[in-house]
Amino acid sequence: MKKIALLGATGSIGTSTVDVVTAYPDLFQIVSLTFHSNSEKGAALIELLKPSYVGVGSEKIKTELHNRFPEIEFGVGEEGMVRAATLEEVDVVLTAVSGSVGLKPTMAAIEVRKDIALANKETLVMAGYWVMEAARKNNVSILPVDSEHSAIFQCLEGQQKGNLKELVITASGGSFRDLTREELKSVTLEQALNHPNWSMGKKITIDSATMMNKGLEVIEAHWLFGTDYDKIKVVLHKESIVHSMIVLKDGAYLAQLGPSDMREPIQYALTYPTRLPIQNEKPFDLSQIGQLNFEPMDFDRFPMLALAFLVGKKGGAYPTVYNAANEIAANAFIDGKISYLQIEEFVKKAVWNYTETNDVTLEEVIAIDKQTRTIVERWIKEEGLL
Amino acid sequence: MKKIALLGATGSIGTSTVDVVTAYPDLFQIVSLTFHSNSEKGAALIELLKPSYVGVGSEKIKTELHNRFPEIEFGVGEEGMVRAATLEEVDVVLTAVSGSVGLKPTMAAIEVRKDIALANKETLVMAGYWVMEAARKNNVSILPVDSEHSAIFQCLEGQQKGNLKELVITASGGSFRDLTREELKSVTLEQALNHPNWSMGKKITIDSATMMNKGLEVIEAHWLFGTDYDKIKVVLHKESIVHSMIVLKDGAYLAQLGPSDMREPIQYALTYPTRLPIQNEKPFDLSQIGQLNFEPMDFDRFPMLALAFLVGKKGGAYPTVYNAANEIAANAFIDGKISYLQIEEFVKKAVWNYTETNDVTLEEVIAIDKQTRTIVERWIKEEGLL
Repeated sequence: MKKIALLGATGSIGTSTVDVVTAYPDLFQIVSLTFHSNSEKGAALIELLKPSYVGVGSEKIKTELHNRFPEIEFGVGEEGMVRAATLEEVDVVLTAVSGSVGLKPTMAAIEVRKDIALANKETLVMAGYWVMEAARKNNVSILPVDSEHSAIFQCLEGQQKGNLKELVITASGGSFRDLTREELKSVTLEQALNHPNWSMGKKITIDSATMMNKGLEVIEAHWLFGTDYDKIKVVLHKESIVHSMIVLKDGAYLAQLGPSDMREPIQYALTYPTRLPIQNEKPFDLSQIGQLNFEPMDFDRFPMLALAFLVGKKGGAYPTVYNAANEIAANAFIDGKISYLQIEEFVKKAVWNYTETNDVTLEEVIAIDKQTRTIVERWIKEEGLL
Repeated sequence: MKKIALLGATGSIGTSTVDVVTAYPDLFQIVSLTFHSNSEKGAALIELLKPSYVGVGSEKIKTELHNRFPEIEFGVGEEGMVRAATLEEVDVVLTAVSGSVGLKPTMAAIEVRKDIALANKETLVMAGYWVMEAARKNNVSILPVDSEHSAIFQCLEGQQKGNLKELVITASGGSFRDLTREELKSVTLEQALNHPNWSMGKKITIDSATMMNKGLEVIEAHWLFGTDYDKIKVVLHKESIVHSMIVLKDGAYLAQLGPSDMREPIQYALTYPTRLPIQNEKPFDLSQIGQLNFEPMDFDRFPMLALAFLVGKKGGAYPTVYNAANEIAANAFIDGKISYLQIEEFVKKAVWNYTETNDVTLEEVIAIDKQTRTIVERWIKEEGLL
């Protein structure tokens, strides 16, 4: 029985995780979970999963749910997430929260030797060096949950380290892949949220459109697999059938493909190296799909992706600035405070505005993250749409 | 230094093997080789590779070459192949001969514990049970060289045995994939030899057109990977970019892809589990290729493939009859003795003509192979075109 802490239980990945866990009640148990604000869905999950600990986003929700479930221990905010992730009985922490809030509980869990099933890419973008170093020291596995990274992880399985030549991350291109930059000037939130292949949370859907998401994935892949940025390629693949590929020294490609169903990478992170059937598996027949298309990535069309390679290679807190500025800007677009193209503007401005001269510590990175958010929030107030 | 016996050195696979071996002179040495009748090319290979033993197809060639290379030991026919494959110093035997003549030297090599890099699919089609059993007993590896089987082998690397759900073998469809059965009535040898993707020997190019080759591959895959016929699928993939795939229990596909270059699977069989660069690698860029197409296989259009599953499931000497009849018929077509569609007719007739009531021994299988050839040769004399 694998005992799971599920951080971000009410989101899209959280929901798919619950599907995987409840399909195999003899194998998996969610012993703790956290969610931010969706108390209705949260309460339903508590009923269903009967966790021993629940972290929530506010004292108000804590009080409300504690009255309803007096037998369960509740916590709030970051402290609640850390507690949920470090409970004695937990074997693996599935971090399905969105944004940099995932970092602290992930680090805390690694320190007490919990394996990490990582769906929160911002953790590695912000602090990849420290997270991977802590994982190595504590002999902890970081198992990717993102479909692209899971695909690469699956392809690398059984390969000698020296066999790898390149990673090829596929990108659907997001909601606006067929629009020119000129046409992007007037796009709406509603259009941006209409992703062609995947049904996901709002923030990640916006990040897919700006290709920020792919940028974060490039940096995540660098840390997860220890691959130089020069050896990470991105190719446009509109069907999202090939989830990603590796290229080996002898020119052979290995690709992982399948339906757009997050249950597969989530389950593989939990059952690895064993595989089990997915309940009510989505039908998938390549000969019915018929055609897979691949196109070169246009870095001029998607400047956020080009910027990812730049901040990644610069290292230090540059990726942190890149991510923090985007978290604020993407959410400001979702809240109607800035236009779509302003997301890119603010991210670029934050990166150009930042200069690093010395090696930074993890504490400094966390401070730079906060500072960047404050700066970008101010810019949005000053220069935003409203 | 890996010491290699190369059976079938002057053929298409033999030539690619020589390319691989000479690219890494510090890693590989061909210590023995055999060829059938191309004594000019054979002599050039002897000059280049300086093997200690050479097997040839006739006493005449032996005498001719022995005069020219008095320091080298020569042998003739099956005995020569067996000797080349079992030389004390040989580590691995690469069997690149075409047809059932590969069986005896392969079995002899396994008995003296040489690893086998297998490009001769007829060996497993005829005697899969006995070959795999002997390999198991002698702790010998059978490493696939066929691009499809190498692809599957590469995808299976690192997977738990129980993870596998299905194999998916890709088929280019061969020279006549776009013709109806009606149109096949009048096709010529020249048209049949014009394979869209691969440059190969004549017999295998004809077998690609009839889909006999895919049928032999299905039976080969059954034995190599121990996979039930119900779990082996064939999909039409005209580009021959995806060399084959596996489907895992959780619905994930792993695919191996790359350029149409036999040096990759040959080299992997020799360097496994390490990978090395291919010299003057063919350029390969998926985003330039742009499109991969997959279509369901039409078993009515390709009755030889349907027949492969039937003889495979029946087992015993049925696959032997299927293969032997085809070897005679395909060569008769190449020699202008029968029409293209008569290949299928004679294979079908041989299979329907054969009845097996008891378990057969390897000796009986070899006898049935000979007997089938005699019968089909007689039919061709009686009923063939000329």
